[in-house]
Amino acid sequence: MNTFGREFRITTFGESHGRAIGVVIDGLPAGLPISPEDVKRELERRMFCHIPALNPRCEPEEFEILSGVKDGYTQGTPLAIVIWNKRVISSYYDELWLKPRPGHADLAYYIKYGVHYDHRGGGRASGRTTAAIVAAGAVAKKLLAHFGIEVAGHITELGGVEIGSEYTFEEVKKCWEKPLPVVDDVAMEKMLEKIREAVVAGDSLGGGVEIHAVGVPPGLGEPHFGKIKAELAAAALSIPSAVAFDWGWGRSLAKMRGSEANDAIVLREGRLALETNKIGGSLGGITLGEPLYFRVWFKPTPSVRKPQRTVDLGNMKPTVLEFRGRYDVSTVPKALVALEAMTAVVLADHLARAGLVRRDKPLS
Amino acid sequence: MNTFGREFRITTFGESHGRAIGVVIDGLPAGLPISPEDVKRELERRMFCHIPALNPRCEPEEFEILSGVKDGYTQGTPLAIVIWNKRVISSYYDELWLKPRPGHADLAYYIKYGVHYDHRGGGRASGRTTAAIVAAGAVAKKLLAHFGIEVAGHITELGGVEIGSEYTFEEVKKCWEKPLPVVDDVAMEKMLEKIREAVVAGDSLGGGVEIHAVGVPPGLGEPHFGKIKAELAAAALSIPSAVAFDWGWGRSLAKMRGSEANDAIVLREGRLALETNKIGGSLGGITLGEPLYFRVWFKPTPSVRKPQRTVDLGNMKPTVLEFRGRYDVSTVPKALVALEAMTAVVLADHLARAGLVRRDKPLS
Amino acid sequence: MNTFGREFRITTFGESHGRAIGVVIDGLPAGLPISPEDVKRELERRMFCHIPALNPRCEPEEFEILSGVKDGYTQGTPLAIVIWNKRVISSYYDELWLKPRPGHADLAYYIKYGVHYDHRGGGRASGRTTAAIVAAGAVAKKLLAHFGIEVAGHITELGGVEIGSEYTFEEVKKCWEKPLPVVDDVAMEKMLEKIREAVVAGDSLGGGVEIHAVGVPPGLGEPHFGKIKAELAAAALSIPSAVAFDWGWGRSLAKMRGSEANDAIVLREGRLALETNKIGGSLGGITLGEPLYFRVWFKPTPSVRKPQRTVDLGNMKPTVLEFRGRYDVSTVPKALVALEAMTAVVLADHLARAGLVRRDKPLS
Amino acid sequence: MNTFGREFRITTFGESHGRAIGVVIDGLPAGLPISPEDVKRELERRMFCHIPALNPRCEPEEFEILSGVKDGYTQGTPLAIVIWNKRVISSYYDELWLKPRPGHADLAYYIKYGVHYDHRGGGRASGRTTAAIVAAGAVAKKLLAHFGIEVAGHITELGGVEIGSEYTFEEVKKCWEKPLPVVDDVAMEKMLEKIREAVVAGDSLGGGVEIHAVGVPPGLGEPHFGKIKAELAAAALSIPSAVAFDWGWGRSLAKMRGSEANDAIVLREGRLALETNKIGGSLGGITLGEPLYFRVWFKPTPSVRKPQRTVDLGNMKPTVLEFRGRYDVSTVPKALVALEAMTAVVLADHLARAGLVRRDKPLS
Repeated sequence: MNTFGREFRITTFGESHGRAIGVVIDGLPAGLPISPEDVKRELERRMFCHIPALNPRCEPEEFEILSGVKDGYTQGTPLAIVIWNKRVISSYYDELWLKPRPGHADLAYYIKYGVHYDHRGGGRASGRTTAAIVAAGAVAKKLLAHFGIEVAGHITELGGVEIGSEYTFEEVKKCWEKPLPVVDDVAMEKMLEKIREAVVAGDSLGGGVEIHAVGVPPGLGEPHFGKIKAELAAAALSIPSAVAFDWGWGRSLAKMRGSEANDAIVLREGRLALETNKIGGSLGGITLGEPLYFRVWFKPTPSVRKPQRTVDLGNMKPTVLEFRGRYDVSTVPKALVALEAMTAVVLADHLARAGLVRRDKPLS
Repeated sequence: MNTFGREFRITTFGESHGRAIGVVIDGLPAGLPISPEDVKRELERRMFCHIPALNPRCEPEEFEILSGVKDGYTQGTPLAIVIWNKRVISSYYDELWLKPRPGHADLAYYIKYGVHYDHRGGGRASGRTTAAIVAAGAVAKKLLAHFGIEVAGHITELGGVEIGSEYTFEEVKKCWEKPLPVVDDVAMEKMLEKIREAVVAGDSLGGGVEIHAVGVPPGLGEPHFGKIKAELAAAALSIPSAVAFDWGWGRSLAKMRGSEANDAIVLREGRLALETNKIGGSLGGITLGEPLYFRVWFKPTPSVRKPQRTVDLGNMKPTVLEFRGRYDVSTVPKALVALEAMTAVVLADHLARAGLVRRDKPLS
Repeated sequence: MNTFGREFRITTFGESHGRAIGVVIDGLPAGLPISPEDVKRELERRMFCHIPALNPRCEPEEFEILSGVKDGYTQGTPLAIVIWNKRVISSYYDELWLKPRPGHADLAYYIKYGVHYDHRGGGRASGRTTAAIVAAGAVAKKLLAHFGIEVAGHITELGGVEIGSEYTFEEVKKCWEKPLPVVDDVAMEKMLEKIREAVVAGDSLGGGVEIHAVGVPPGLGEPHFGKIKAELAAAALSIPSAVAFDWGWGRSLAKMRGSEANDAIVLREGRLALETNKIGGSLGGITLGEPLYFRVWFKPTPSVRKPQRTVDLGNMKPTVLEFRGRYDVSTVPKALVALEAMTAVVLADHLARAGLVRRDKPLS
Repeated sequence: MNTFGREFRITTFGESHGRAIGVVIDGLPAGLPISPEDVKRELERRMFCHIPALNPRCEPEEFEILSGVKDGYTQGTPLAIVIWNKRVISSYYDELWLKPRPGHADLAYYIKYGVHYDHRGGGRASGRTTAAIVAAGAVAKKLLAHFGIEVAGHITELGGVEIGSEYTFEEVKKCWEKPLPVVDDVAMEKMLEKIREAVVAGDSLGGGVEIHAVGVPPGLGEPHFGKIKAELAAAALSIPSAVAFDWGWGRSLAKMRGSEANDAIVLREGRLALETNKIGGSLGGITLGEPLYFRVWFKPTPSVRKPQRTVDLGNMKPTVLEFRGRYDVSTVPKALVALEAMTAVVLADHLARAGLVRRDKPLS
């Protein structure tokens, strides 16, 4: 199942060291402006080339929009994007063949797909495949922009360092000008230090991120099984290494009493609003016109230089794996960009489901 | 969107104070034994009548299986279950009409559905509607049992009281003999005390639960968007009041380094296994033959006796709501049973998707 | 797969001699007026009680709307309708058990579902189950009416008698006042004669029908696989006994040259239009604002009194079946009403997909 | 909606004169042998280069398999195929811009997509896009072959010439060695003559085809809405220019009495079988182990050299279109290959749905 969404739907394909990865985006209205620059910008945000520990093989992506766009506007037909894989030398992976790397999907893929699975670079399970998701997100974000919706995320935790709790949406958007998208400068410096330490230790780091969506119209989301929070949770847990999800104040709400957890309903500029929005912008799975926000946590990159115990599938005997390739010390920054993209896809889908995107005629 | 699942799919319907709630279960093979007792047992597990604070209006459910079963076996056709609503006196709710209760879905439903939404008892957003999910789960569990799969959950946190970390799957199953399904007796007593305190205070409690699924075959789950963890997250966040999800060790993994977080791959009785299974039983979204487990947190019941600020939708002026009806001091125990049910539905769906459930002929 | 549709979707359940049949309708906006009368009227149109040969066991349907409606308007939540089965005496069917009736689904169901299938009255494959579809169609038609769309059908062929080709949409609607909905009185009398002959002969009749949909807005339908004609074909062939489908002039177009088959594009009252609309109102699978029309053919009722050869599944030896029960001499009239219903469902779905049905707020 | 299928699903993209067309095939098991040759062969079958009137711009397709295959076997991940469009000179189409060609999808696309639609070569609605379907069919056929299922079609009618009714499945397969795949030599010669006449007349021809599927296991198909005939009808009507569908004997059955139309149930080599299989191999929408067969009719190519009336969308005045480009005198032969492909996709999907394709482990 490599398709996500119902009315705005993306279908991804591709393995890390195959010919290409890509995505087909279906459900777009005609008349939405899209340029290769829109896709390029998002793909570049995912690169983090300025911090080599986060992307040791940094090279610009080469991609093509194969269909669905004419003279800079969507046609209303499927928009296919192919991102070419570099002619990488995969020989290093020969050594890993039949030696599943702990924490990676190797073991699972071996069980499910047998010897037919492409283990090179992680194959279909590679973090690289999220580039296709990011490309789709670039298109979804353009649709959201048409409706005045903005999605932006930031890093809230890395290597155990957590940010403080005071910041605005403007600060979240602005922190992308820093080396790491962290609203809290002190925390960011500590995170960078943790990255340096991990490089030296030959180890890796996990962390957490937060997504905000502002301008989301009220009335999106469906009972029982199309709740906006449920579909965002599915979207989030689809990203490699995601292990936890908090909607609004999340787990903290579970520790409160009802009288503390409830958001009072108030009038703000004549409009019904939540006084505190601890609940993350939806009730009963349906949006209220309040900002949506949620957090997602990712485990550390499974690739580390420390020796790890595994089983040699050739002789079914225990063995020790010593990884000598390059790896991202943390995948959290790239995963954040992918999560923004998936969030945009979910919201675009719900705009269409609710009838806000007319598709019997071009977008006006 | 009141349908969940692809090959094993459930479609729910019904409002809290309407004529009935119910579910249609599609995708069953023929030949699975099902009796009304199977459904009754699960519906009763959800009641918690022995603790009146958790269910002040305790009455047995009256339900009928309308189709899909013949002589105690599934026919392979849709199995519809209707659960009749009691002839409840809804007049109390007249007072709440146009006064959205903070923390409830009232405000969202008013925005989306206008005056047409049935606010009585929470309408479609009522926790009561999870009874239909539990009925579907009873059927899904029978299918899982045929494949040797067991699903069981327990309460891990209530009103801020958390259990310790040492317990077995047998203890999880056995703890349903206690007043509350809590593996840790000391914690359970404290939770019961918290419930008593909340009753006195006219307040409510949130908490957390954990689900285990044992006997799940390897190879279930699909890249990119049918990951077992992603679909379980969507299932979990579909349950009213759910606000957080942890897969395996979840958020704790995000604080570790890779060398700590990775599970070594070992041989156990000649079979490939994870030494520690911190990752919750899947890699790359695909099952390994290891037990699956995850945690979900729920916010406290929004209904409390303390006065709460809201807006009178009749005159669009602020007002204060004083709830005087009965309410569940915590919905966590009922939500746990619904979560078991949704877990069973997800696993049944993945068994079918993977081809383990033959549907060209009866189950043998 | 007992669910049809994507945004406006129906899920049916029930066997002919089980407790009930029914349908859950999902995707409705809030605020659509619906009364039990709307459903009753359509169910009655399906009965044809005035011609006993078409419905020898004529009894009014007893049904309930279980959810989704409040004070005469849809709530925006699933609308479930249950139609109770009469306490029929099924003992006659004991004799048929393990003697699959030629032309019925018995053999197929025995293969797929084994002894678990409910053969009484045809079980899940019974024409009776189309009553649930008709109930759903009643609701779909109300949504269409809101958008000014009308769907009406008539019988074009019965027992080999065919109507002429000159008639208007008004005549199609009006012919429901006659004993049989046939625009051509001479043909109707011949059809009634064919029915009488078939009763005497203990045999049955097939035939064909035509559906018109007027007021359908332009721009509905999707390339490649959501073509309006493709989804109507699937809807039509879902009805028991359907064996052929013609879109527009259908098979006749295949015998023409391009210069004859093409419809000239003209201006009609300043609007782009087809001069002749031989193509049935869509091009490339997309509606043009022209009326849609198509024909569907049904095989004769498989039940006949003439002896028929089959195999006794008990001893796997050939046997001869002599059916002695009552049967509908032709299912074409009932099938026509079911086809109108399915057409309404498809169009309602496409209205929603295209964004013409807003579902973030009630219908205005 | 450019995705078809549930468990075996194809997603197509691309416009006729854009960069490329293509398809993503999802739901494949791992371990199915696939070579570029398999795809090439099917693409070539679609070309009919030896009859220039059927393909005046004949050039071999250039395609690439971008993902999902490793060392000649499927990986179990999405298999993406891109077919590059030639650098065609589209200037001819400049003249057609805003002059919708009668019978083509131009008018519909203009209504739905406005000026954003790519009219060159028919854009997304071009018959060319069926090459992507044929590529997907090549892969689906390989999966069918693994299960011993064969799909083959032939032309039954062209330009009004119809074949006789006596032929075997072996003859159907073998007739692909002839200039046109027609079992009846006399009819084929007449068809070729009709083609020559149409070339001279500057006109075009419609026709009909028949598909046979042999070796289909019993028990595939689902009540109510996954009937094998309903999904094949949808698949058929998805192909450009398709206008009619007959299941089994189709419309002829509608003229019979029940006693004539029913197929007696007999024993054949100890197996339950239909004596005559007039019904096309399924009952109640479920396969019986009998061969499936159905017919589909296509209207003539809309492009003809004769002047045709249309409206100039620039000034909204009537105008006459004189097409001077090259065109396929009949699209029936290409459509036949696309229909074979869609049939293979439907059957592959139903194999997977029924659990015959295991996807928790590689194909053995």
